[in-house]
Amino acid sequence: MPELRKDPVVGRWVIIAVERARRPTDFAPETTTLMGPTGCVFCPGSEEETPPELLASRPGGGQWTLRVVSNKYPALQIEGDLSPAGEGIYDRMNGVGAHEVIVETPDHFANLGTMSVGAVADVLHAYRERLLDLRKDPRFEYILIFKNQGAPAGASLEHPHSQLIATPIIPELVEEELAGAERYYRMKERCVWCDILRQERRDGKRIILEENGFVALAPFAPRFPFETWVLPVAHRATFESIEPGDVDALARLLRELVGRLNRVLRDPPYNYALHTAPLRLVELDHFHWHLEVMPKLTKVAGFEWGTGFFINPTPPEDAARFLRDAAS
Amino acid sequence: MPELRKDPVVGRWVIIAVERARRPTDFAPETTTLMGPTGCVFCPGSEEETPPELLASRPGGGQWTLRVVSNKYPALQIEGDLSPAGEGIYDRMNGVGAHEVIVETPDHFANLGTMSVGAVADVLHAYRERLLDLRKDPRFEYILIFKNQGAPAGASLEHPHSQLIATPIIPELVEEELAGAERYYRMKERCVWCDILRQERRDGKRIILEENGFVALAPFAPRFPFETWVLPVAHRATFESIEPGDVDALARLLRELVGRLNRVLRDPPYNYALHTAPLRLVELDHFHWHLEVMPKLTKVAGFEWGTGFFINPTPPEDAARFLRDAAS
Repeated sequence: MPELRKDPVVGRWVIIAVERARRPTDFAPETTTLMGPTGCVFCPGSEEETPPELLASRPGGGQWTLRVVSNKYPALQIEGDLSPAGEGIYDRMNGVGAHEVIVETPDHFANLGTMSVGAVADVLHAYRERLLDLRKDPRFEYILIFKNQGAPAGASLEHPHSQLIATPIIPELVEEELAGAERYYRMKERCVWCDILRQERRDGKRIILEENGFVALAPFAPRFPFETWVLPVAHRATFESIEPGDVDALARLLRELVGRLNRVLRDPPYNYALHTAPLRLVELDHFHWHLEVMPKLTKVAGFEWGTGFFINPTPPEDAARFLRDAAS
Repeated sequence: MPELRKDPVVGRWVIIAVERARRPTDFAPETTTLMGPTGCVFCPGSEEETPPELLASRPGGGQWTLRVVSNKYPALQIEGDLSPAGEGIYDRMNGVGAHEVIVETPDHFANLGTMSVGAVADVLHAYRERLLDLRKDPRFEYILIFKNQGAPAGASLEHPHSQLIATPIIPELVEEELAGAERYYRMKERCVWCDILRQERRDGKRIILEENGFVALAPFAPRFPFETWVLPVAHRATFESIEPGDVDALARLLRELVGRLNRVLRDPPYNYALHTAPLRLVELDHFHWHLEVMPKLTKVAGFEWGTGFFINPTPPEDAARFLRDAAS
């Protein structure tokens, strides 16, 4: 059973993933060699090699176009209770949670920038359905949907996929966002992301593109070069509250954004993470869901790990201009 | 002039390092090819290619054995005032600070695990001297000393070196450590790191080695596999308060620890960061300086960037055992 442990100073939880336990010699030097579809467990024909399917799209009952399966090497384990316990001054609990993989397409070589708008929309629909399903489990407090694209961004399999991890506690960064947003709301009676959107759309210099109710922008204080946030213009605390009719517009924006990142930065490695409200706090006036897209072009090094302070060599105004000018 | 910008939600500051500005095509894919001493600006004979020397050891007046110079491409700039200003809902200030490089040895191929204890002690003395000198500048609130070893850990030059960055604000992680430690102290009237040391030395299972007043241990909730903390057993808030006579013991421990990491993990890339009290808060009963050594064996990916939650595949008890057993 994986274990959740809490740092006694800063209160940060970590997952000790004993099911993924590694000996010193198991840490291979990084490789970015493309493997191709041979032996890929996510390609059609290898369905038996994944854990059972949780969700799939099979238009007309034929070949699947999208599958959601449990992660074969889960960071958290679905069965069991938290059983929180102390160990002297320390706190721990069982690593209970869900860890799923969204296989976005049968095409090993596709990506969100080359897939059809309909296929990207199916990915977003799958996110929504899994969120709506998993929130019924009372043990979970938060669900993170994220994507690792490219080996330098942490992808261990190259077939296009995203992941979902449901956690029994609200993670630290989410707590910090909630606390900051609540502080702002108490002062101004306005959502901070609504204010960001108003100022950015008026200024225009950090706006990358807009699409029928959604905006992609370079944030004012980005940690990473070409970091981009995608937000709904209208205030919504949870991603799963998105109207099914709005999913197509978001899919068009996301597809266009990834296509531009790929053109401007030559298929960069990137992560994205969906920031949505915690499961037990739904109708929040001060939280506004957003997707943070983080290209991994520079190394995070000792200064960042020691201070939490990031050094970014690309002003967001420059990044936004490059991405605006890359319209196809 | 670099710029400091604050995220309006979580309050995290970032450095927009315009002097290091990069166009999209400037982000090269990562390479770990060893370059060797040819053309190395930190090797003897290339002294003219670095900015002026701030400190050096030249035993007997001959060849230098250690040099401290300003960083040629500083993340922060030494001249100027902060000039804090708003931009609508955002906050910014000038990127004023110091950014120095400690060239640890003339030997391009040495490392802290192979250098003599005396040479490692000289590096620690240099840290102390630069801290004592820079704390006189009233514009600075914090000084971080850190090291990036190996390209995957962010080193852009392979000649053995550490770095120092003095910042005009207390960085976020340091604030969090201070706040957590103060909370603990208010509850218990004891320093949390003193309590960690007491419990760990009694248990023993996460202790790696001890050396005359200093301990290296695997923390209970490490973010990274083989993460190791080095602490003085006696309570000390600031590193620079170290007794000159204790520097040798610390140097022996650090040299032995790096040697063991190199043996067990085959010269891993790593970062370390010296956590010392902020400059204007010196005699803290609740802060205890420590060095956090973080091997970079796994990728930080979307889950970590989205939640602040880390997945670590190596239990610290296992890491400590491997490093204990690697005694030379």
